[in-house]
Amino acid sequence: MFNKILIANRGEIAVRIIRAARELGIATVAVYSEADKDALHTMLADEAICIGPARSTDSYLNMNAVISAAVVTEAQAIHPGFGFLSENSKFATLCEEVGIKFIGPSGSVMDTMGDKINARAEMIKAQVPVIPGSDGEVYTAEEALEIAEKIGYPVMLKASAGGGGKGIRKVESQADLVAAFESASSEAKAAFGNGAMYIERVVYPARHIEVQILADQHGHVIHLGERDCSLQRNNQKVLEEAPSIAIGHTLRREIGQAAVRAAQSVGYENAGTIEFLLDEAKGEFYFMEMNTRVQVEHPVTEFVTGVDIVKEQIKIAAGEELSVSQDEVVIRGHAIECRINAENPAFNFAPSPGKITNLYLPSGGVGLRVDSAVYPGYTIPPYYDSMIAKVIVHGENRFEALMKMQRALFELEIEGVVTNTDFQLDLIADKRVVAGDYDTAYLMEEFLPQYTQSLES
Amino acid sequence: MFNKILIANRGEIAVRIIRAARELGIATVAVYSEADKDALHTMLADEAICIGPARSTDSYLNMNAVISAAVVTEAQAIHPGFGFLSENSKFATLCEEVGIKFIGPSGSVMDTMGDKINARAEMIKAQVPVIPGSDGEVYTAEEALEIAEKIGYPVMLKASAGGGGKGIRKVESQADLVAAFESASSEAKAAFGNGAMYIERVVYPARHIEVQILADQHGHVIHLGERDCSLQRNNQKVLEEAPSIAIGHTLRREIGQAAVRAAQSVGYENAGTIEFLLDEAKGEFYFMEMNTRVQVEHPVTEFVTGVDIVKEQIKIAAGEELSVSQDEVVIRGHAIECRINAENPAFNFAPSPGKITNLYLPSGGVGLRVDSAVYPGYTIPPYYDSMIAKVIVHGENRFEALMKMQRALFELEIEGVVTNTDFQLDLIADKRVVAGDYDTAYLMEEFLPQYTQSLES
Repeated sequence: MFNKILIANRGEIAVRIIRAARELGIATVAVYSEADKDALHTMLADEAICIGPARSTDSYLNMNAVISAAVVTEAQAIHPGFGFLSENSKFATLCEEVGIKFIGPSGSVMDTMGDKINARAEMIKAQVPVIPGSDGEVYTAEEALEIAEKIGYPVMLKASAGGGGKGIRKVESQADLVAAFESASSEAKAAFGNGAMYIERVVYPARHIEVQILADQHGHVIHLGERDCSLQRNNQKVLEEAPSIAIGHTLRREIGQAAVRAAQSVGYENAGTIEFLLDEAKGEFYFMEMNTRVQVEHPVTEFVTGVDIVKEQIKIAAGEELSVSQDEVVIRGHAIECRINAENPAFNFAPSPGKITNLYLPSGGVGLRVDSAVYPGYTIPPYYDSMIAKVIVHGENRFEALMKMQRALFELEIEGVVTNTDFQLDLIADKRVVAGDYDTAYLMEEFLPQYTQSLES
Repeated sequence: MFNKILIANRGEIAVRIIRAARELGIATVAVYSEADKDALHTMLADEAICIGPARSTDSYLNMNAVISAAVVTEAQAIHPGFGFLSENSKFATLCEEVGIKFIGPSGSVMDTMGDKINARAEMIKAQVPVIPGSDGEVYTAEEALEIAEKIGYPVMLKASAGGGGKGIRKVESQADLVAAFESASSEAKAAFGNGAMYIERVVYPARHIEVQILADQHGHVIHLGERDCSLQRNNQKVLEEAPSIAIGHTLRREIGQAAVRAAQSVGYENAGTIEFLLDEAKGEFYFMEMNTRVQVEHPVTEFVTGVDIVKEQIKIAAGEELSVSQDEVVIRGHAIECRINAENPAFNFAPSPGKITNLYLPSGGVGLRVDSAVYPGYTIPPYYDSMIAKVIVHGENRFEALMKMQRALFELEIEGVVTNTDFQLDLIADKRVVAGDYDTAYLMEEFLPQYTQSLES
C-alpha cells in the first residue's frame, strides 16, 4: 500500500479522498490555489502545497505544478478526483513517466474511451448496444440519407471532429436531411477543418442510466449496479438515485453485464462509469459514453452496496484485488443524492459565492451523509464550481429515502450565500419526481418553467 | 400511524427521535426546561412547550407537566428516550390511564424487570442463564455458607432491599463469610429495615455483552445481535461496539436466543436490551438485567443491521408489525461508538459546561454518523448529563472501524468547553483496546491509572 498520496483536486471530493486515505493509514498531500489557502482540503491534509494563482489553468490544471508537488513531497500516487485533470490522458501518461501512480486508468485507455467514434467501435466489438447510427464517418448527404432511412427519424447529425455544440443538427424527417447535412458539414469544416459527420438516432424520451464499475489489475471486473441521473439542468446532474426505478431485474442484469463487457473490452483499470440512454418504453439501452474517473454521485452507490468506491480506487492502484466479488454485491434499499450549489435559482441559477456566516449541516440518525468542504466562516471563492455540498440519504425503500431527504434539507442551514436548497426541496416534493416518472428533459422542459413562474408570482 | 408524538427528553436522543418521527411523517412536540430554551430539540420540533425550571425534578421528571403538555398539544403518544422517565412504571401507567400511548413496554412489565429478585425468577423460568446464587432471600449465615459452598467463591452478598451500595460485601473465601454476612445483614436492616440478603457468584473477569431485542404487539420477538460495552468508567459506558469479538457463532446464537426467550417470558413489547455478563474463559453468560428502553449505544446495532431502532419503536407502539423477521437480520461489518462528553479527563472527568464557540463535526465518506444536539454558539447547561455527541462508525471489519473512528475524532473540533475527545483517541489507540482484549475492569483498573500518569508527566 502507498505511504503517501497527493490529491490533485479541491472541494468536497478532495476532502472525501483525504478522509479515505487517512482511514487506510496513508498520509495525504493537498495542493491548493492561492484562493484556497483556507479551504478545508488544505487544512485537513497532512501536507499542503500551493500550486499557483486562483485561476484553474494556473493551478489545478497546471500539470507541471501538480507533478512537481508530488515529486517534492515524495507522494507515490496522485488521485485526480473528478473534473480538472481527472480525464486528461496526457496527465495520466506524465505521471507514469515520472514513476508516480495515477489513480485511474492508463492514458491510452482514456484516449480510446475519450474519442466518440473509437469508443463506439469498441462497444460494438464488445457487444454493448450503441445508439443506432453510422458505423464511422459520413461524407455525403446521399450516404446520410441512406443511413437515416435505415435507423429511423428523428436523427442527430454530429461533426466527427466536433465539440462545443458546433456542427450539430437534429433532423426530424427525410425532407430536412440534405439541407441540414450540408449546413452542418460546412460549419464543421469551417470550425474544425474537417467536414466529416456521423449520424445517430435521437433517443427520446430517455432516462440517463449509468453503471458503476470497478476493475482491478488482476482481471476482475465487477459492476455495482446503476444510478438514475435523469434529472439534469443544462446537462448538469441535479439529483441522482440508486437503484433506478425504471428498470426491472432482467434489464438490471443485462445493463450491468454490458457495462462489465465495456470495461473488459478496453482493459480498463480502476473505477469507472458507463453511461447509457434508456428508452423506457422499449426497454432498450444504448451506450452513451464512459467516464474514466470517480463521479460526483458515487455515494448513492456506496450507500446501496456498502462498497467504499474511493478506497477501492486507491487499493486497485496499489495493486490489491477488489474487496468484493460480483456475487457479493447486493443492492439494499434506495439512496438519493441532492447537490447543494451556491447559486440563485431566482436568477437563472447564477453562482452565489461569498462568506458562509452560519452553517448547520444535518446529521444523525440512520442513512444520512453529507459530503462537503464548507465550514462556518468559510468563504466560497468565485473561481470554481458552485457545488458546495452533497446531501445523500439511504432508506429501506424510495419513499423512506425521499422522506429522509426532506428531513435533511429542512434542517440544512447555510447563511451568507444563496443556495438551491429550497429548489431541491421543491423538486423532491414534485408529483412526477415522487412517482419517479421523469426523463432527461423533464426538469428543463416541464419542472423548471413552472418553478420559475411560481418564483415570479 | 400517529399524527403527532411528544418527546419527553432533551439532548441528542430527543433530536434523534424528532428526526425519526419527521421521516415517518409524524409531527413532533418537544418539551423543554427553562435552561433548554435554545436547545436544538426545542428548535427542531414542530411545537415546543416549556415544562418547568432547569432542575430535572421540576421539568423532565415532572410527570404531570409532561402529560399536560401532551394533552394540550393533542399528542397521541410519548417517546421517553432514555434516562428521565423512560423506566418509570408509574409514568407509563399514567400515560395509559389518560389514553396516551407510551412508546415502550407496559408499566407492569417494567415493574417485573425492575425488581432484581423477580427478574431473576422470571429468567430461570425462561431458561435464561442467571448468575449462580441463591434462588430467593437468605436469612442466616448458615444458609449462606451452604449456598456459597455450592456456587463457589468468591461470592457477592447483596441486601435484598438494597440500593446505593449499602449492605453489599464481596467475600473471597469461606473463612470470611460468616462475619461478612452478619455485618452486611445488620447494615441492611439498619438502612432498609430488612436484613434479608441474596448471594451471587462473582463473575470476574467478565465482559458486558448486551442483546438488542424488538418485540411487536403481534407476538413477534427478534434480536438484533449483541453489543460489547465492557469499556466503562464508574459503570458508565465509554465506548461500545457491535458485534463483540469475544463471542463466536455458536455463542452468538445462544445468547441471542436467550435474550428472545427473556423478552417473550414477560410478554415484552417495544425495543429493549438484555444485559449479560460473559465469562470469556468459560464461554458462559449470565443474565444481569433488562433495560426497558432505547439505549445510548443503539446506533452501533443500527449500523451493523440496517434496522432503524427508533422508527421501529414508534411503529411498534402504533401497532405495526416488525419491519424485519429474525431470518432477515444479518450482521454486516463492525461498528463502534465513542461518547463525547463535555468533561475534563485531567480533573477526574469533571463536567465542563459552557458555550461552544467553534464547532466542526466530522462527516462525509462511508460509514460515519454523528448524533448530537450541539451547534456553534450553543451553551451546554450545567444541569444535565455531560454527553454532548456520539461519534459512530461502521467499517467492513473492526480494524477499518477503528481507523475510521481515529479519522473522525481527529477531525472533531469543539472549542469553548473541554471534552474527552483526546481521551477517546488515546483509548482507541491502546494496544489492548485495538486487540479487543479487555473486560469490564480494564478501563478503570489498568487503562486509567496509566492515562492519568501520562497526563501528569
